[in-house]
Amino acid sequence: MLTKSLPGAGPQGRVYNFNAGPGVLPVTVLEKVQAELLNYGSTGMSVMEMSHRSAAFEGILSNADADLRALLGISADYAVGFLQGGATLQFAMAPMNLRPAGASADYIVSGTWGSAAYKEAGKLGLARAAWSGKAGSFSSLPAAGELDLDPQAAYLHLTTNETIHGLEWQSFPTPPAGVPLLADMSSDFVSRPVDINQFALIYAGAQKNLGPAGVTVVILRRDLLERVPANLPLMLDYKVMVEHNSLYNTPPAFTLYVVGQVLSWLRGLGGLSVMAQRNQAKAAVVYQTIDQSGGFYRGHAAPAARSRMNLTFRLPTEDLERAFAKQAEAEGLVGLKGHRSVGGLRASLYNAFPPEGAAALGEFMREFQRTQG
Amino acid sequence: MLTKSLPGAGPQGRVYNFNAGPGVLPVTVLEKVQAELLNYGSTGMSVMEMSHRSAAFEGILSNADADLRALLGISADYAVGFLQGGATLQFAMAPMNLRPAGASADYIVSGTWGSAAYKEAGKLGLARAAWSGKAGSFSSLPAAGELDLDPQAAYLHLTTNETIHGLEWQSFPTPPAGVPLLADMSSDFVSRPVDINQFALIYAGAQKNLGPAGVTVVILRRDLLERVPANLPLMLDYKVMVEHNSLYNTPPAFTLYVVGQVLSWLRGLGGLSVMAQRNQAKAAVVYQTIDQSGGFYRGHAAPAARSRMNLTFRLPTEDLERAFAKQAEAEGLVGLKGHRSVGGLRASLYNAFPPEGAAALGEFMREFQRTQG
Repeated sequence: MLTKSLPGAGPQGRVYNFNAGPGVLPVTVLEKVQAELLNYGSTGMSVMEMSHRSAAFEGILSNADADLRALLGISADYAVGFLQGGATLQFAMAPMNLRPAGASADYIVSGTWGSAAYKEAGKLGLARAAWSGKAGSFSSLPAAGELDLDPQAAYLHLTTNETIHGLEWQSFPTPPAGVPLLADMSSDFVSRPVDINQFALIYAGAQKNLGPAGVTVVILRRDLLERVPANLPLMLDYKVMVEHNSLYNTPPAFTLYVVGQVLSWLRGLGGLSVMAQRNQAKAAVVYQTIDQSGGFYRGHAAPAARSRMNLTFRLPTEDLERAFAKQAEAEGLVGLKGHRSVGGLRASLYNAFPPEGAAALGEFMREFQRTQG
Repeated sequence: MLTKSLPGAGPQGRVYNFNAGPGVLPVTVLEKVQAELLNYGSTGMSVMEMSHRSAAFEGILSNADADLRALLGISADYAVGFLQGGATLQFAMAPMNLRPAGASADYIVSGTWGSAAYKEAGKLGLARAAWSGKAGSFSSLPAAGELDLDPQAAYLHLTTNETIHGLEWQSFPTPPAGVPLLADMSSDFVSRPVDINQFALIYAGAQKNLGPAGVTVVILRRDLLERVPANLPLMLDYKVMVEHNSLYNTPPAFTLYVVGQVLSWLRGLGGLSVMAQRNQAKAAVVYQTIDQSGGFYRGHAAPAARSRMNLTFRLPTEDLERAFAKQAEAEGLVGLKGHRSVGGLRASLYNAFPPEGAAALGEFMREFQRTQG
């Protein structure tokens, strides 16, 4: 049960946490982690103190793997890895592992994160922008016909959800025949059903929908392993990851355990279709408030590209934006300030964010407009 | 207070945890983490859910930095970073950042970890063994005169404590003039005072004496930054680490918070001199039992190279070793089996391991010899 959580109102004084990541986690998961913190199962120790070669930890890891595969329908054609270093390390690992020497890779540059992936790939070899939303202030995503695709590309890379600009793909483009599709799914991973088979590589930092920061999930179609060159650093080599089942060295074991608890919570709630409906409904409350505000609130994203995870909007003036964030925080709505690079407001409504919190934000927005508009 | 902890005996049923890493953490730290798990300070959220750009997390990070600097006497000439990927990623990062193109680096190959660092450096460029203990089954460390040092080496690398073989340097060699000394301190970091100024780079995975797995501490003398080449992947670049104060992307925030709690606990106990005495006393109990066993227990390490962290020993037969580990576990002494690569027994007595546990192991060893010897 999600606690009513204005400060002091809930039993634990928790707030509505709109942080863009690390973000809110399910209260039931936190309570379980808390209960088991000094003694997991009958092991007599915390998961933090446990050998990563122990039967108990192997169980934690294999359950996380099985739950993730069940939630997303991941077949045996794909390896699942749990790495470190965030999406930013994947920005380098993807081209280092999957772009043959001399080959070029295509990138869809849809916002801050698509740009960062493109830039890192270009630093390490040949990369090409198949589309860029920069001229449009990253407020929309391309239609299929707008993409300039290289049929010889080593792969096509996209960002399923732009956390900072608040854009989310509703369906994914089809690359030219033989060109694998790669995706950074960090900020909308496991928030909706996705046909994994469209992708050759998916990666996602955990700290949005999946758990605490410090774990990166990698889902790799096994035939891509043929591309991995010799002599990569061990921790940057997808072959090492797959051959050692993410246990070449000590993994971030406790963080992985919390990720496993979140995956189990997701399955218990009914899986990704249920979660997608819930996320859609939460976002609709806020977008509706924006659309019915007569222009007082202005959404950054074009309606067709609106993210259900990160809802970005502006007010008539920056002074009003500051006042909005400050007053909201005083009422227990925390983390609404937009990213420093783009300004404005941003409400992140990840899986664990409670529907009551979205309703509370809508109410606050209407009241703020009534009194300050 | 450290709980008396045979299974069911302590209030939380905790065992004596001899794991080599991840290893035992201070009970008081775990209790504090548990108490704050759903609401840190007055933030209304868990540290797991907190923005890494928030004032609360900045406080956590700067306190950890300050406590580490105070404990080890780290001057402003050194940068402190908190990275991911473990020592294994540092095995690659050290040469990638600090070995100029075409230059060779010297490695002291003193056990599994020294070998691994040497091998990774050799894969990525020129590396030379300044000494190897392989012919002696990694049971000793070199005297100063035994080292074959390259005066032109980019650096000299050593492993302060070999976790698997149970060897620990008591004092460190002086490299040729102008050759920086680098150290993997993963398994004896913050277990004793060390003169940081002997080293140009120190790195250590947290999961021995410092906290949960998922954080790697890096201490780098700032003048070495001049060597960092252009166009390294962002997450592999010491310059990016230093310029962004470990916050280029989302750090493993919760793990860092636990590390900070452990550092604060260390300072509260009186710092590293106090801890070193305590560790020395714990190890003495076990080594004394070995030395007084008339050869029933045989230490792997030459006495001059004995580790206070990882105490490795054999019994007359492998059957007896299996029986020892099994019976010990039944009595709440958990994690004594040696590493699968070398066999035998290993007792890891990290900072947080209670003195009563070392006494209990000594007692168990004498009783086992009496009944099975």
